[in-house]
Amino acid sequence: MVRALVTGSRGFVGGYLIRHLASSGDEVIELPEGLDLRERGDVLRLFEEAVFDVCYHLAAISHVGLSWEEPYLVYENNVLGTANLVEGLSRFHRNSRLLFISSSEVYGRVPQDSLPVTENAALMPATPYAASKAAGEQIALQAFFGSGVSTVVARSFNHTGVGQPASFVVPGIVSRLVEAKRSGRRSLRVGNVASRRDFSDVRDVVRAYRLIAERGRAGEAYNVASGKSLSISEIIDMAAAIVGVDVDLEVDPELLRPNDVPEIVGSIEKIVADTGYLPRHDFHDTLAGMVGRLDG
Amino acid sequence: MVRALVTGSRGFVGGYLIRHLASSGDEVIELPEGLDLRERGDVLRLFEEAVFDVCYHLAAISHVGLSWEEPYLVYENNVLGTANLVEGLSRFHRNSRLLFISSSEVYGRVPQDSLPVTENAALMPATPYAASKAAGEQIALQAFFGSGVSTVVARSFNHTGVGQPASFVVPGIVSRLVEAKRSGRRSLRVGNVASRRDFSDVRDVVRAYRLIAERGRAGEAYNVASGKSLSISEIIDMAAAIVGVDVDLEVDPELLRPNDVPEIVGSIEKIVADTGYLPRHDFHDTLAGMVGRLDG
Repeated sequence: MVRALVTGSRGFVGGYLIRHLASSGDEVIELPEGLDLRERGDVLRLFEEAVFDVCYHLAAISHVGLSWEEPYLVYENNVLGTANLVEGLSRFHRNSRLLFISSSEVYGRVPQDSLPVTENAALMPATPYAASKAAGEQIALQAFFGSGVSTVVARSFNHTGVGQPASFVVPGIVSRLVEAKRSGRRSLRVGNVASRRDFSDVRDVVRAYRLIAERGRAGEAYNVASGKSLSISEIIDMAAAIVGVDVDLEVDPELLRPNDVPEIVGSIEKIVADTGYLPRHDFHDTLAGMVGRLDG
Repeated sequence: MVRALVTGSRGFVGGYLIRHLASSGDEVIELPEGLDLRERGDVLRLFEEAVFDVCYHLAAISHVGLSWEEPYLVYENNVLGTANLVEGLSRFHRNSRLLFISSSEVYGRVPQDSLPVTENAALMPATPYAASKAAGEQIALQAFFGSGVSTVVARSFNHTGVGQPASFVVPGIVSRLVEAKRSGRRSLRVGNVASRRDFSDVRDVVRAYRLIAERGRAGEAYNVASGKSLSISEIIDMAAAIVGVDVDLEVDPELLRPNDVPEIVGSIEKIVADTGYLPRHDFHDTLAGMVGRLDG
């Protein structure tokens, strides 16, 4: 039996992960509630005593907007928190596995002709959040190159599912469409609906994490993606059809982001080759599940 | 006239840099003594008021051994300090130039057949110090990709010169040889004298920094190196001849580092092509200057 220590287990993805691990037969160990990864002494004490085979490090502040307002806070949590965790692993768990959860944001503005982006692409982080993940990757990899901890990195592209906060794009669309149906209001204020992103179902994402932890090569990074892109307008159309509502899109200049990248899509060649991962959930079904929960 | 803000101006390299800048006609601005780059509020206040064109960011804890003992301290200074500085630049100095001083340590254990190492090599940091520099690079680059600050990165290989603390390898050799001549003691305890490193004169290094700041392409990293490697035993022979002393080398197992890389040498193709930099100081002259200062 694999003993899995999970940080960030109380977040949206963390909840899916610990259920997936438990149902796969792993023993799940959560961090004590209130443990702050920025507190080196607390982290080292915990790691000195903890018994586990794999550490899934999900805990992070992942709000891009907040990272512009309070970069220090995001770096402190995402970078120093990771540094403390890595010190705990390097001191007490050299034979363990570390899965560091990074983000496709580390790639930044990839030129259209380099899509789908592979793991070898240069990192060009454009937000403090992205830089905190790119920096965290270096610290997680140091645990491997310097101390022999078996580190692997997952670079997650967009993902969604039931329970994701409505501040994220897809649940935001779904809840506003359900509301439009209820209220009879027929217009939806949107930003740049032409943007294309690579969306996965969160249930596929956590399955990918476990596969990477089990089969990924130490010192390597893996894209966790669908390998396809969908535009925001395609997602709205799909969700509107499921909800059964007709809406007019009304572009709100306030919602347009000046530096928005037109398309992001990740190559899944490496994760497929090394771990056998293949996405299982069609995005239409993901949306149907989310609509069903709100409009049930 | 170029106005240059220099962090770390009170260190070994910083002293050489501010003298080189001043003698090149730049205006040098030092940080107030006692300013701690970890203090976000202090850093932002300073950057709101400071007037400069280029920021040379040298301030860092560069002691590899300490980074193993106190990784948190090194990450806090080298990573969060850089994050605060980047926030100051992104908020108040978007049109400025940032030169981030990184280290050849970010490359880690480069396979022999990939030497001399180029800037495209994968980063494989093996010490917390190396990871703090690799992480700092990502944060410095984010200032460019996200806020348009004209960031360039210098990856410095080994360098030495008069005034470097004797805890570093070359001044350590020189001072022990001078002492051997004085005392008549004829044996020198050494570690792995076969290790080959790429040594530059600190005066060349600071000249390279100014050239990169002047001519380097934003978003790019540049090796600052000699392009050649010297073994520790070659350096001992050269220095012993200058001092005029004959010593027997006595290998001390305590001084052998188990994970020592046999050779590191940096490619200077990119810095030569983009900035016109060429090393001027022959290493023999560097050593002669260091010996002269101690044995004058």
